[in-house]
Amino acid sequence: MQGLDGTFRPAGVITLTTDFGLADPFVGIMKGVIASTARDVDVIDLSHEVPPFRAEIGGLWIGRCYRWFAPGTVHIAVVDPGVGTNRRIVCVESPEHLFLVPDNGLAGELTRHLDDWSATVVEAGPLKLEATSTTFHGRDIFAPVAARLAAGSIDPSGLGPATRDLVPSPLPCPRRDAEGVSGEVLLPDRFGNVYTNISGPMPAAWQRALVSIGPHTLRLVRAYDEATSGELVAIFNSFGLLEIAMPRGSAAAAGSWPPGTPVRMHESS
Amino acid sequence: MQGLDGTFRPAGVITLTTDFGLADPFVGIMKGVIASTARDVDVIDLSHEVPPFRAEIGGLWIGRCYRWFAPGTVHIAVVDPGVGTNRRIVCVESPEHLFLVPDNGLAGELTRHLDDWSATVVEAGPLKLEATSTTFHGRDIFAPVAARLAAGSIDPSGLGPATRDLVPSPLPCPRRDAEGVSGEVLLPDRFGNVYTNISGPMPAAWQRALVSIGPHTLRLVRAYDEATSGELVAIFNSFGLLEIAMPRGSAAAAGSWPPGTPVRMHESS
Amino acid sequence: MQGLDGTFRPAGVITLTTDFGLADPFVGIMKGVIASTARDVDVIDLSHEVPPFRAEIGGLWIGRCYRWFAPGTVHIAVVDPGVGTNRRIVCVESPEHLFLVPDNGLAGELTRHLDDWSATVVEAGPLKLEATSTTFHGRDIFAPVAARLAAGSIDPSGLGPATRDLVPSPLPCPRRDAEGVSGEVLLPDRFGNVYTNISGPMPAAWQRALVSIGPHTLRLVRAYDEATSGELVAIFNSFGLLEIAMPRGSAAAAGSWPPGTPVRMHESS
Repeated sequence: MQGLDGTFRPAGVITLTTDFGLADPFVGIMKGVIASTARDVDVIDLSHEVPPFRAEIGGLWIGRCYRWFAPGTVHIAVVDPGVGTNRRIVCVESPEHLFLVPDNGLAGELTRHLDDWSATVVEAGPLKLEATSTTFHGRDIFAPVAARLAAGSIDPSGLGPATRDLVPSPLPCPRRDAEGVSGEVLLPDRFGNVYTNISGPMPAAWQRALVSIGPHTLRLVRAYDEATSGELVAIFNSFGLLEIAMPRGSAAAAGSWPPGTPVRMHESS
Repeated sequence: MQGLDGTFRPAGVITLTTDFGLADPFVGIMKGVIASTARDVDVIDLSHEVPPFRAEIGGLWIGRCYRWFAPGTVHIAVVDPGVGTNRRIVCVESPEHLFLVPDNGLAGELTRHLDDWSATVVEAGPLKLEATSTTFHGRDIFAPVAARLAAGSIDPSGLGPATRDLVPSPLPCPRRDAEGVSGEVLLPDRFGNVYTNISGPMPAAWQRALVSIGPHTLRLVRAYDEATSGELVAIFNSFGLLEIAMPRGSAAAAGSWPPGTPVRMHESS
Repeated sequence: MQGLDGTFRPAGVITLTTDFGLADPFVGIMKGVIASTARDVDVIDLSHEVPPFRAEIGGLWIGRCYRWFAPGTVHIAVVDPGVGTNRRIVCVESPEHLFLVPDNGLAGELTRHLDDWSATVVEAGPLKLEATSTTFHGRDIFAPVAARLAAGSIDPSGLGPATRDLVPSPLPCPRRDAEGVSGEVLLPDRFGNVYTNISGPMPAAWQRALVSIGPHTLRLVRAYDEATSGELVAIFNSFGLLEIAMPRGSAAAAGSWPPGTPVRMHESS
């Protein structure tokens, strides 16, 4: 096992998840620092369009996506409206992956998606980082620390003291009761599919399910092509999350379901 | 010769063309799967902003752009509104390039731009792919198959049976007659240049040409700087396609020419 | 010392800064040409959203950002509304970095940010480039030349004759007088921070500073969290540029400050 026993074996890959967008040079500069620090490490962009200030969505993305990357990957997520304040930076370890993230709800959301984890507070002292800006820790802390972790030149256990006490995610957990599961809308994707915080699979005892949202009651389908033209349906998507979809159309355009809109999944009678 | 005789020699490079956008994690996850499958393969993004549902534009882009990549490159294009239905995935081979694409008009458009090609239906069975989602074949089929092709660990001939019978592109071909060439508008680019489906060069017997579109008759020029300030002109662009341009301005903003608008090129008297 | 003595030692890294956007295949094609020319060179995107026609902003970005990349990096910047005209392409050398840029104000702006530089006019003849388009020199000249420079297969001194005579940047330089510094607004970033052309640090003799812009007089702070909720402040940002910011909000949305809006920094009494 890697990670928890202090023997993380880096694969030489870093993923980046931020709210920086790609229009400004922020992401390119982070890659410059990584390449300068560890020339052979590869960087893969996961998303740079996390909604600004919604740190928990950054935690959701890496928590839902890390499994598609090789064991030994280091994942950076920077959604960090508190940069320059005393919010902590933590290194979360799962058995095969490392996550370098701010402790502002992002780490708290991430750990909900990990079966087994430990965390270390990143302290600048032991890393001998040069003077850092108060405005761009992605460049000054996250990038150089991740590069060294990904290259194997530092060990996560050397970053600082262990912690289990993370700032919790502001996202509510779905609530299971005798008749079904209650959750809420998170955000839409590019295709107008509306993601919720209810994760799959459907309870094994159920034959079929319906999903209620606002005035709609939708069938839970297994593939987009089970929908008729223009039909709103619910489906467990490729992230394992329940989504509201209108195949070959846009569910987001067919209704108004801002983040927080209640959603309920229940067995079909 | 490579490809057609079953001796494709991979260069270790994959290009990606999709309608996924870059805001959501879809593209990053595909790169994670590729890196997990074949660590030394490099990935180059061609475009992730193909207009949703216009699969043929994905075929146009890779058909017009593949020549700028090294022989031995594997090109993925996923514009796939029918994901999860029984639409086929095909591997198209030109002598020096492989294309892994859905057979939904995208493959049909692509092959219009290839002088010589063969195609194989991709079947999951021989590839021993794990259980796939019904919603994200980019991650579950395209990425792992392309990674193995790009690394040389599988051969395109082993993917499934050969086929010549591809779903045709919905784009009309330009029509040549005695006096000129008739085509139509495809889409604008970032600079407001409006691309058409008429490809160059100008017929060799002509001295000069004019281009008619709506109420406009435009000069065909050889370089943007032949235009006077604010003049709409026509030019064969860097993709070899006739475009309507207003140098240092936006042709798209200077008129209304949605996809399908008729365009005619004729010799200047 | 590298560069000025003709002994540039390439690190095998190229950065790209353009106004091409990422929706169209332009950037991907440039990367294809680079990979075809020099397979082991890595490419890092700095920004592809330089405002169209504002070449000087391209020069500003690479001039402000190059230091975060390894010595031996080759930086391409293509913001080139005059492509196909007789505007020159130049290779600017600082002691440890190369810059391949159009001489249209972009090179002039870049050199303001370099302590020591020389420049060479890039001539197609010695490079034996194949026939080039009149519309896409990024693909036909910048990419192949940069790839050879980054791979060490050509030397910058072999590109053409030396020059010191560059087209000047249209951006005014900030003006220092007895009481303060006068400058102007450049552009906003994704977070709504409004960048100016006044660079830091604050004059050493000052204790505190105020920044005047339109009807506002703002405190110059050292970190975003010194601002109270909803307060507009000024700060030297991670590029060393004075910016107008509203932490956890958008300064750009809180006022109207188009490019060129006057800004003045003065000591606080």
